[in-house]
Amino acid sequence: MKQLLLIGIGPGDPRQVTYEAVDALKRASVFFVLDKGTDKDDLLHLRKAILERYRPQGGYRLVQVEDPLRDGQAADYVGAVRDWHQQRAALYARLLDEQLQPGDVGAFLLWGEPGLYDSTLRILDLVREQGVLLELQVIPGISSVQALAARHQIPLNRIGEPLTVLPGRRLVEQGRIDNVVVMLDGQCAFAGLDDPQLHIYWGAYLGTADEILIAGPLQQVKARIVQVREQARRRKGWIMDTYLLRRTI
Amino acid sequence: MKQLLLIGIGPGDPRQVTYEAVDALKRASVFFVLDKGTDKDDLLHLRKAILERYRPQGGYRLVQVEDPLRDGQAADYVGAVRDWHQQRAALYARLLDEQLQPGDVGAFLLWGEPGLYDSTLRILDLVREQGVLLELQVIPGISSVQALAARHQIPLNRIGEPLTVLPGRRLVEQGRIDNVVVMLDGQCAFAGLDDPQLHIYWGAYLGTADEILIAGPLQQVKARIVQVREQARRRKGWIMDTYLLRRTI
Repeated sequence: MKQLLLIGIGPGDPRQVTYEAVDALKRASVFFVLDKGTDKDDLLHLRKAILERYRPQGGYRLVQVEDPLRDGQAADYVGAVRDWHQQRAALYARLLDEQLQPGDVGAFLLWGEPGLYDSTLRILDLVREQGVLLELQVIPGISSVQALAARHQIPLNRIGEPLTVLPGRRLVEQGRIDNVVVMLDGQCAFAGLDDPQLHIYWGAYLGTADEILIAGPLQQVKARIVQVREQARRRKGWIMDTYLLRRTI
Repeated sequence: MKQLLLIGIGPGDPRQVTYEAVDALKRASVFFVLDKGTDKDDLLHLRKAILERYRPQGGYRLVQVEDPLRDGQAADYVGAVRDWHQQRAALYARLLDEQLQPGDVGAFLLWGEPGLYDSTLRILDLVREQGVLLELQVIPGISSVQALAARHQIPLNRIGEPLTVLPGRRLVEQGRIDNVVVMLDGQCAFAGLDDPQLHIYWGAYLGTADEILIAGPLQQVKARIVQVREQARRRKGWIMDTYLLRRTI
């Protein structure tokens, strides 16, 4: 039985980590850091900064592995993601087998909230299907969606209204937009909307020193967001951003 | 200018509080605790436990006020909530005026996440409309939705799927249900659904010693949830619960 902690570490600010998460950080003996390539060095540094802050004595091992790349051009999006998850499951199963000895407690440091657009839980289900016995504990973390709302000082929903959270590629299929939070939108789907009643609250690198916030009527600010976003992405080599679209009444 | 901190303190477990929230707790000199009546004594005690844990030296004032009751029978739900918010805004404006002296930092301890189905931000907008100058800071907190997902060890959304969060009274209007989180459902709206493909993940008193979790195919477990919920509510005098409905594929 392999013991594994899935620790939500918030959007980037080491202070936006819970006491429960830090208790878990202190229990772990092996940290798995899986990244997508060198352009994400900042994200690795942020995770290391969290470990240095809350585990200053060391006494753990850090296992860094490059995650397989997903076929971003595949016509069948869900199928391509499933294939990618299978590859990652094979990698994770091997890592857990090689790196976790009896008595070890493994941990994944997950950005934001482990339940929201993070695939680790799903991949570990696939690992279990391969016969690996896992004892999991999941620790919630502040998602970038919450950091976005807090920094703009807005509620995510108005009185009695639903809130929908979706990935950028699903925005075009969305019918009426009242309160929609969009994540993972590398294509700036918001820029294609011409509804004059929408307001946007946008944020990038939330919780970090590079945080950028822009809000306003969508039609007035969308070009500026696209421009600022592209400049930031080029300068840093990567971007993580999210936004809320809200219909003004 | 009145300084005010809106601090998300998570679903109930004092360890599910962030370091940022505790930094804010330490800065505040006056805590406002507004509750709906004596049946919520537990919630007051949980907040006091958080203060005792993170402010053991004291050195602050606790201002307890009974919140006005909302007209739960009104035909116009949104209108009734708006009236109620206006009453609360008048109360809050008076409290801030009376209780915050120059140099004071006021704080509201808010369950879960301040941006999700919490009306404090909205009420403070109304307070500002009355001419009160406020300097706000909002600190995100772990919502009961995140605690629910973590305890059931499930992601809130599957690959590429949207997630919708809504209040119980909006569930019947919802069309197709893939991933729907329901909050504030005193009427057990889930029990009225007869779709055989839905799975439910339910939790009450999340993060507290009284936590209850039930999951399973909706049609098989819904009667049990209604029964367990009602027993718990009678025993404790109040209940806070939330659930995720998911279509099985």
